[in-house]
Amino acid sequence: MNKYVLCLIMWGFFCFPSMWAQSKYYANSQVWLQKAEACKSPLVYKDHYPIRIVKSIKDEKAYQGWRMEDAGNVSTLFHESLKKHSGIILDFGEHLTGYFSFTLKMLQENIAADAPVRLKFTFAEVPAELNTPFDPYPGSLSRAWLQDEVITLNQVPVQAQIPRRVSFRYLKIDVLGASSFDFTFDKLVMKAQSSVLLQPSVLANTTDPLIQKINNVGLSTLKECMQTVYEDGPKRDRRLWIGDLYLEALANACSFKNHDLTKRCLYLLAALSNDEGLLHATILEEPEPHPQYGQYCLDYALIYNVALLEYVKTTRDLATGNDLWPVVVRQIEMALRQFSPDMIYDMQKPPLYWLVFDWKDGYDRQASMQGLTIWSIQNSYELAKLLGKEKDVSSWLVLIKKMKKAARACFYNKKTGLVESGAERQISYLSQVWMILSETLTQKEGRRALSSVMAMSEACYPGSPYAYHYVLEALLKCNMNKEARELLINYWGNMVEKGADTFWEVFDPKDDFISPYNFYPINSYCHAWSSTPVYFINKYPDVFQSGLK
Amino acid sequence: MNKYVLCLIMWGFFCFPSMWAQSKYYANSQVWLQKAEACKSPLVYKDHYPIRIVKSIKDEKAYQGWRMEDAGNVSTLFHESLKKHSGIILDFGEHLTGYFSFTLKMLQENIAADAPVRLKFTFAEVPAELNTPFDPYPGSLSRAWLQDEVITLNQVPVQAQIPRRVSFRYLKIDVLGASSFDFTFDKLVMKAQSSVLLQPSVLANTTDPLIQKINNVGLSTLKECMQTVYEDGPKRDRRLWIGDLYLEALANACSFKNHDLTKRCLYLLAALSNDEGLLHATILEEPEPHPQYGQYCLDYALIYNVALLEYVKTTRDLATGNDLWPVVVRQIEMALRQFSPDMIYDMQKPPLYWLVFDWKDGYDRQASMQGLTIWSIQNSYELAKLLGKEKDVSSWLVLIKKMKKAARACFYNKKTGLVESGAERQISYLSQVWMILSETLTQKEGRRALSSVMAMSEACYPGSPYAYHYVLEALLKCNMNKEARELLINYWGNMVEKGADTFWEVFDPKDDFISPYNFYPINSYCHAWSSTPVYFINKYPDVFQSGLK
Repeated sequence: MNKYVLCLIMWGFFCFPSMWAQSKYYANSQVWLQKAEACKSPLVYKDHYPIRIVKSIKDEKAYQGWRMEDAGNVSTLFHESLKKHSGIILDFGEHLTGYFSFTLKMLQENIAADAPVRLKFTFAEVPAELNTPFDPYPGSLSRAWLQDEVITLNQVPVQAQIPRRVSFRYLKIDVLGASSFDFTFDKLVMKAQSSVLLQPSVLANTTDPLIQKINNVGLSTLKECMQTVYEDGPKRDRRLWIGDLYLEALANACSFKNHDLTKRCLYLLAALSNDEGLLHATILEEPEPHPQYGQYCLDYALIYNVALLEYVKTTRDLATGNDLWPVVVRQIEMALRQFSPDMIYDMQKPPLYWLVFDWKDGYDRQASMQGLTIWSIQNSYELAKLLGKEKDVSSWLVLIKKMKKAARACFYNKKTGLVESGAERQISYLSQVWMILSETLTQKEGRRALSSVMAMSEACYPGSPYAYHYVLEALLKCNMNKEARELLINYWGNMVEKGADTFWEVFDPKDDFISPYNFYPINSYCHAWSSTPVYFINKYPDVFQSGLK
Repeated sequence: MNKYVLCLIMWGFFCFPSMWAQSKYYANSQVWLQKAEACKSPLVYKDHYPIRIVKSIKDEKAYQGWRMEDAGNVSTLFHESLKKHSGIILDFGEHLTGYFSFTLKMLQENIAADAPVRLKFTFAEVPAELNTPFDPYPGSLSRAWLQDEVITLNQVPVQAQIPRRVSFRYLKIDVLGASSFDFTFDKLVMKAQSSVLLQPSVLANTTDPLIQKINNVGLSTLKECMQTVYEDGPKRDRRLWIGDLYLEALANACSFKNHDLTKRCLYLLAALSNDEGLLHATILEEPEPHPQYGQYCLDYALIYNVALLEYVKTTRDLATGNDLWPVVVRQIEMALRQFSPDMIYDMQKPPLYWLVFDWKDGYDRQASMQGLTIWSIQNSYELAKLLGKEKDVSSWLVLIKKMKKAARACFYNKKTGLVESGAERQISYLSQVWMILSETLTQKEGRRALSSVMAMSEACYPGSPYAYHYVLEALLKCNMNKEARELLINYWGNMVEKGADTFWEVFDPKDDFISPYNFYPINSYCHAWSSTPVYFINKYPDVFQSGLK
């Protein structure tokens, strides 16, 4: 009779209609948007609970100087005053993405709460994130990405939810304000979400625990990023980028096989191209699907073509291939505008596009872009053949020849066997890689170039797992299987050894604190483009599971 | 077609059934709770908008060292990037209590928000509250009362609400996190609430602008505290205390005349007495009405009787008087247990009750409690007569005589004409006051005592408007109308001159930073017990409006 259940406060976010519409270039873009919505996967939810209490230990040998040590059973959290445990850190045992909610209860009978409480929840992907002051904030991306949330609760008992979606393994809870009464948690739950369900996975052809572990961490990474689109990182950015889509779709095809998600993303990107038909590099879903207007990456636009090819090859969904074929043609037309009459990519020709390729200071992208364009046109031609359209684009074969010839003349140093890029004739891993992937170099030349560059301490080496994906592809193409396996173990395996639950956005084995954003806690520690070991290990079991032949 | 309205995130507070039930002492307590609910006043809502932008100016002459200066038109807020105006202060022109909501919009066309924003809203009653760092927090009450709320908004445009109820005149907005895009407010509204509607009020019998202003500030204070109960302070505590109820009801009877609110509070308190029938000093309404268990103030319990008398006198609601009469009798019985055989209040006799009377360090409450008890019994006898129950309590008349005689013998120094309290024979304003209000001293003796104490620089003077209320009553009782008017002007008028929009919980003209809680920003600057100028000015127009006869 005396029991009330009051819904005291509503926190409502309304999202407004956006100003962006689908592309005016493609007649079907409105239909494409509808198709994208039609194949949106429902999310799968699962409740998770903390598995232990931990404490942060400063340790120079640990990744970024901090490791977590066991500090007791979670039951403490439900039976002792939270005021005595301000700063407590909970370990959920794995990286999770979703919504966190909790209930607080009074600990003493017949005592009423006489004041509000103020709590801070800090959600962290890696241990150092909880041990690095966020303010004053030095980072170059919005401070609001960092996941520290302060809330005031008018009374205890209370049930509450952190309004934003969070992504984390560790949760630190600080009591910033309380009165004399004692309270603690009654419930505490993380409702995790993904468009796929992670199943325990045992590789059939290996007993190597590190390979097994790399595969599992890759699967976790991929699962976390597979939401209603392929997100780049569930903590930060939370949006669809073409580069991530391509690598995620490759890994998905070898694992979760949620092909509808790939299809959705391909349609979204196509529908939201600009009015010249050029793809935007990135799409956000809320309040309604829209591009980050004006954000073009010409390498990504060309990669879209290859992503579509891979999708059609995997699914045999020729209808989608045919539907989106005009986009493929248009990306190549747009890229070719940036080439000089002698078929060399002109870095100075307006508009100056951002070329992603890697997060790496000082890396010259010209040779890489030359190679990537050739690679994209070759793959687009393969798609044309699948769709029976190769006659429409027979000119591409001539073009490819010309571009390769120009590339060899411009970038390839026959004496050293190395590709050199830009006015400074820079020697980088990626310049070799893209000339190999595009088959501008022969396999033999490629092997020589890769062996040389990997032996050069002064060579510009990659800064991100994204770039290392293409290095691995190039090694495999050159039949350098031993080196490919070593790279997988030395790079992704090194992350695992440093404690990665999910693979990181950037990783330089020589610098644990590297950040493209001037502040390593703002890095994404679960990043889509780093999940490709799943693709390599499962696509090439002979190389990565059974070891070397 | 493309327009979505999504409700993204729900912030739900559920309040759980509490463990407290109504008093087991009174057979009707369950019915009393129902009666309290039945006369709950509906709240009146009104939307308010900022009237100007201000900036904080450090000024030693200003109250607490800060004053607000005009800094422009509010339209800036809606047309210029909020990032350029981080730290902006809005002035809503008056003290308001309720819920704050806003909408953010993008400022550039065809730019999508690419990151969340993090904003801090600090709501302040007085200027210094915005200019005193809250952390590290030195106060003795929960830090969570302070009204600084940090929120993360996942996107722009967005509509959001600060989940907690706030109480303020000034609002400071800091941008703690943002990306490169520009955004600002589209709307911004404070939905203010009260159980009464403040109407413009002009006093009929005075042209003195200060008296007029004191009356208006008192009305604003009272309006802000009149919610679904008489709250003590809408910013901090937000609950029903007997002491505040008594003074608020006096002022209400001379102004808003929302007698249902008084009735509701009287019933709530009675229903939630302890199992000996003693009133709890304070009641909270959420999640369901319950006392702050174990919180007794014996002076407040006795004041309840007088509050009921005043209610019955004002409304002639004899039914309620009869209904609650057992509570009146019981409070006196409970108080008498604390008296020595020679009828002196025994400060050492367990249980040791908290006696409020004032916020004032070192003030000895013994003589005051002796006087207040007599005063309460006398008033309770007056209620008995109104209800035709005087024969039931005829013993009280004998009791009153005995207590007065004992009081004079124990506390009254005939030579000096002053009441002295405690082992240290302390001379305080309030010891005189309560011996006057209880008619333990004659009017002539009272006049002598008050004149003397007010001339003594070493006398213990009151620390709060609450205590000064009784000083004013005592002055009027001694026909010291000139002094009463001077006190009103010097004390409450001084607050007005220092910029009060509403009257403050504590005020010492000699110390702007005084705080019972070790941190002046946690003081309540709109406090119920300070609103009694409304009662005095309107109840005694000859004294306070027309000046002196």
